[in-house]
Amino acid sequence: MKIAIGQIRVVSANCIENYESIKIEVEKAIHNAVNLIIFPEMVLPGYLNGDTWEQTSFLKECEYFHFEITKLSHKINIMFGSVGIDWNKKNEDGRVRKYNAVFIASKGKLLENSKTGLPFWIKSLLPNYREFDDSRHFYDLRKLSQEMDCKPIDLYEPAILNIDHKEFHIGLSICEDGWSHDYTFHPIEEFSKRYKHDFFVNLSSSPFTLGKKEKREKLFSSISSNVKVPIFYVNCVGVQNVGKTIYGFDGSSTYYSSNNEIVCIGEFFKSSLAIGQFNSNNKKFILENKINKNENILVKDMQISLEYIIEKCLQEWNINRVVIGASGGIDSALSAVLFSRVLGSENVYLLNMPSKFNSSLTKNAAFKLAENLNCPFASVGITNSIEHTKTQLNEIAFLRSTSVLDISTLVFENIQARDRGGRILSALSASLKGVFSCNANKSELTVGYSTLYGDQAGFLSPIADLWKKDVYELSKFYNNEIYKSEIIPIETIQVVPSAELNENQNVLENKGDPIQYTYHDYLFRSWVEHWDRKTPEDCLKAYLDGTLDSMIGCEEGLSKNLFPTVQSFIIDLERWWLNYKGMGAFKRVQAPPIIAITRRAFGFDHREHIGRSHFSECYMSLKKSLEV
Amino acid sequence: MKIAIGQIRVVSANCIENYESIKIEVEKAIHNAVNLIIFPEMVLPGYLNGDTWEQTSFLKECEYFHFEITKLSHKINIMFGSVGIDWNKKNEDGRVRKYNAVFIASKGKLLENSKTGLPFWIKSLLPNYREFDDSRHFYDLRKLSQEMDCKPIDLYEPAILNIDHKEFHIGLSICEDGWSHDYTFHPIEEFSKRYKHDFFVNLSSSPFTLGKKEKREKLFSSISSNVKVPIFYVNCVGVQNVGKTIYGFDGSSTYYSSNNEIVCIGEFFKSSLAIGQFNSNNKKFILENKINKNENILVKDMQISLEYIIEKCLQEWNINRVVIGASGGIDSALSAVLFSRVLGSENVYLLNMPSKFNSSLTKNAAFKLAENLNCPFASVGITNSIEHTKTQLNEIAFLRSTSVLDISTLVFENIQARDRGGRILSALSASLKGVFSCNANKSELTVGYSTLYGDQAGFLSPIADLWKKDVYELSKFYNNEIYKSEIIPIETIQVVPSAELNENQNVLENKGDPIQYTYHDYLFRSWVEHWDRKTPEDCLKAYLDGTLDSMIGCEEGLSKNLFPTVQSFIIDLERWWLNYKGMGAFKRVQAPPIIAITRRAFGFDHREHIGRSHFSECYMSLKKSLEV
Repeated sequence: MKIAIGQIRVVSANCIENYESIKIEVEKAIHNAVNLIIFPEMVLPGYLNGDTWEQTSFLKECEYFHFEITKLSHKINIMFGSVGIDWNKKNEDGRVRKYNAVFIASKGKLLENSKTGLPFWIKSLLPNYREFDDSRHFYDLRKLSQEMDCKPIDLYEPAILNIDHKEFHIGLSICEDGWSHDYTFHPIEEFSKRYKHDFFVNLSSSPFTLGKKEKREKLFSSISSNVKVPIFYVNCVGVQNVGKTIYGFDGSSTYYSSNNEIVCIGEFFKSSLAIGQFNSNNKKFILENKINKNENILVKDMQISLEYIIEKCLQEWNINRVVIGASGGIDSALSAVLFSRVLGSENVYLLNMPSKFNSSLTKNAAFKLAENLNCPFASVGITNSIEHTKTQLNEIAFLRSTSVLDISTLVFENIQARDRGGRILSALSASLKGVFSCNANKSELTVGYSTLYGDQAGFLSPIADLWKKDVYELSKFYNNEIYKSEIIPIETIQVVPSAELNENQNVLENKGDPIQYTYHDYLFRSWVEHWDRKTPEDCLKAYLDGTLDSMIGCEEGLSKNLFPTVQSFIIDLERWWLNYKGMGAFKRVQAPPIIAITRRAFGFDHREHIGRSHFSECYMSLKKSLEV
Repeated sequence: MKIAIGQIRVVSANCIENYESIKIEVEKAIHNAVNLIIFPEMVLPGYLNGDTWEQTSFLKECEYFHFEITKLSHKINIMFGSVGIDWNKKNEDGRVRKYNAVFIASKGKLLENSKTGLPFWIKSLLPNYREFDDSRHFYDLRKLSQEMDCKPIDLYEPAILNIDHKEFHIGLSICEDGWSHDYTFHPIEEFSKRYKHDFFVNLSSSPFTLGKKEKREKLFSSISSNVKVPIFYVNCVGVQNVGKTIYGFDGSSTYYSSNNEIVCIGEFFKSSLAIGQFNSNNKKFILENKINKNENILVKDMQISLEYIIEKCLQEWNINRVVIGASGGIDSALSAVLFSRVLGSENVYLLNMPSKFNSSLTKNAAFKLAENLNCPFASVGITNSIEHTKTQLNEIAFLRSTSVLDISTLVFENIQARDRGGRILSALSASLKGVFSCNANKSELTVGYSTLYGDQAGFLSPIADLWKKDVYELSKFYNNEIYKSEIIPIETIQVVPSAELNENQNVLENKGDPIQYTYHDYLFRSWVEHWDRKTPEDCLKAYLDGTLDSMIGCEEGLSKNLFPTVQSFIIDLERWWLNYKGMGAFKRVQAPPIIAITRRAFGFDHREHIGRSHFSECYMSLKKSLEV
């Protein structure tokens, strides 16, 4: 049996485009005498579609294209993921019943599951954590079985395909069905107990995060060995978003032989069509064409994923030109590199916007970066405009009020940041028929160390899911491994990180940000990314126990070094926690879209409310007992 | 049996504050010799808590306060909603098992449900639509029964309280358990079939939307008559948010006698403690104190809810002063009224910021509004600053680029808007130790008719869930019914809505916005708020059929009047659809928090992805067949 894996790029809520991609691969497969072509989960409608699922006309369009795909199946069997609709039943929101489903088109018809009477197979487990929203729109096999008063397994049967007079029994599963360790129902395992299968498929639409691919391989490898049935894991590529949070899909489709043999059948972040011969006797899957396997180096995965996601976003949004406010610091430098790699350096405009607080060191570094990258470069001062704003504010005289304006240092810092972002970069990029980027990193975004409508503005935040340490690591990787030259100037890497918005933030005197990244990156990460989310009470207890550094993962001894007294520790802890839950949360609501590459990116994956921040009873008691 | 209804204000994720409120009401109830006090759903931890549920320390804090509440129950029975935790089991996300539950503290102990062995009763139905997220964090009774291989009803039993030597059997339900029409399991009905109850409670945490209260009364009235058991419906008040989208909770707790008698036992958007005598023989509930019932007038509900939500937001965020860019138009005028009502007019600063495009008509109207409201007022021109920006842009000379800047009319319009919002209002409000408001309405926000970092900036959008027609209606209501004088100047109400950002938007020549609100308000609403979300294909078909006006609800004949030819209709339709799905969606990601009062507010209740907008196959074919 000849099988093709159509690891195609899927676009959200765009059946026309996805159908065209499917059709091209089907025709190639027919040309190669393939018996079965397998496409990923939700390959036709897209997966992260927001509430588009609530449009009846969108559902009708999906059904129209199911019919069109079926027409292509006279010489080949086509397996694909899409939305299964039962117009006679209701979802729990009162709208029409929808399933996340696998369809199999064969000889011009859709195969039917005789247990449900429906022309598709239904996903059993719907993820409802992180950025996933499946159960908002889809009914699952478990609910259906409860409704029909039977067990989920009673509604399942393998799909049977007749190929060259031999019957193949195919086990069907969709994405989360494989990730069942936290559920009480284990689809692949239970289906295998009741039925004999030649192989399983797992159709996925699995957003990339760093380290997930390795986890996935371990998981499906172990399932396949356990049930002693091979598994074709088929994932899509592309970029889809849930508004604020943008995900890449890495493909990396893989064949698991059940004999601990793993065959890469889909490239990393690349469309591909793998074609191979499947032998159900020896469980070998022998590829006819070469599919490159990824090396699994963390920083390289970071580089590849970011470049891919940025590229596809710009293509989809039809953006050809990006302006970057280049301060001479590391964040804007990395942004400039990323956009240059994707758009070509001639389309990435670097603009330095100094005030009197900017050092020649950083000004020169910005100039050098542009020269190294070969990007257009200009410099424009903001001294006159910020002074004008100050003067104008001071001249405002309110009728019926005696309030006096207080243009504090902080207010003046923010005036500078907004003058750059909200005034110059906004207008300049629009005049160039382009956009400008937001260069915020995750450390800043966690505690709102940025100015709304200033440096927090932009069309996209390419590095907002990178902690400051990751920004450095990736920057050095570009210099050392990609360019093998000092593209990002060494001054930029060595200078103390600083906003340079007042005379105290003088980098020449080594005065910079109040965030101590070697420690705070880890502290913040424990609040945001840890599985069991840490809180001040956990951190204070660990500090007192001497286990804080190992709990958060920073260098041993660092916290006691930075904060020799519990009092100094508490002041720092409370400052940042209040910023994280308070102003930080408030600013994130208005932050630009973020490219997600970790297990917990801000936005839809990190649901939060904005409110008055406070400390728990336990924290307050503990603090009181310390008499600080 | 004497029952008290503790309709208290609940704060998100703040056990300390909520416990204090509970304690005060319990003490009052004890003082009044009450036998049972009933609090709403999730009264201790709050309901819209984002992912705070993932913090183990937060869960421990909840348990600590369950114990504290239980200590108060020696002289009274206390029923309250909170999170039920089973540390021995897992949720489907792998974290600890959590239930949305009812607790009953009696004689210093928590009652136990003997069927589950747990010291609480579990919610059966978890809403997973609109802004609700219950199944992300909580396990429900249906899943538990599937796990335990029984029916949901098998895990249920009434709670039994002994009061004055008489046994009372109380049926327990939580919020959605009553709204079961779209589910296959109907908790209250099924529980009543198996057990005899003296009364049911429904503990709710039900976000307010216009018209919901009436729906709620109809629903619970009918359930109570059907099962022939009285129901105490107990809802909270307060304000909670899901980041971008802010909800008010209206209370309006109600007693349904099962004999079609309805007793108001909680005020509309007000904390209250209703105390009354329940007689299980005649099913009467006789109140000892007076509880005011709301009148149910739509525009008045709009006024009360907006003022309440704004007030509580400002209190929670500790904001005492608001600056408003007063253009002389209707949106900023309504904002000014709302904030003045809440903060007192002396704390609401109106600033008019004219350029040469602003008419004396609107400038005078802004001045008059401030005078009428008695707000501080000032005017500051932006002509110099926007000219400075233009000059500065034109002087920028990029190295390595020959691109010519094109400061188009649109670019120059946006420069003006950002000069006002991103430059002056931001800095001024910060200098006054206040914030500034975003005055966008829902019509603008739908199609992105606003400038990012300009008029779309602000700390809060108080009227972003009001269509333009609602803005007018509420404004007139303030003049006619609340103030009974022309507080909002008649010019502001009569002038054509206009951005006044170029010479063609001249209000004196009656030239204004490209949005025809009498039609587009309804068209946009069909895309956003209709149950079956309308799309261009639905609209074009309806236009051709002559059913569009009735489908969207605008004045009959209007669409043919505005668009006599199908060609002109299509141009308009496509323009706004592309804006809604394209730039509009993109701008909404960076929009300020929105106060929700309709069934579909932007933000978490209107999940969307940003991408290239397009039209469906069916729409394209239909258009092609028309040969336009």
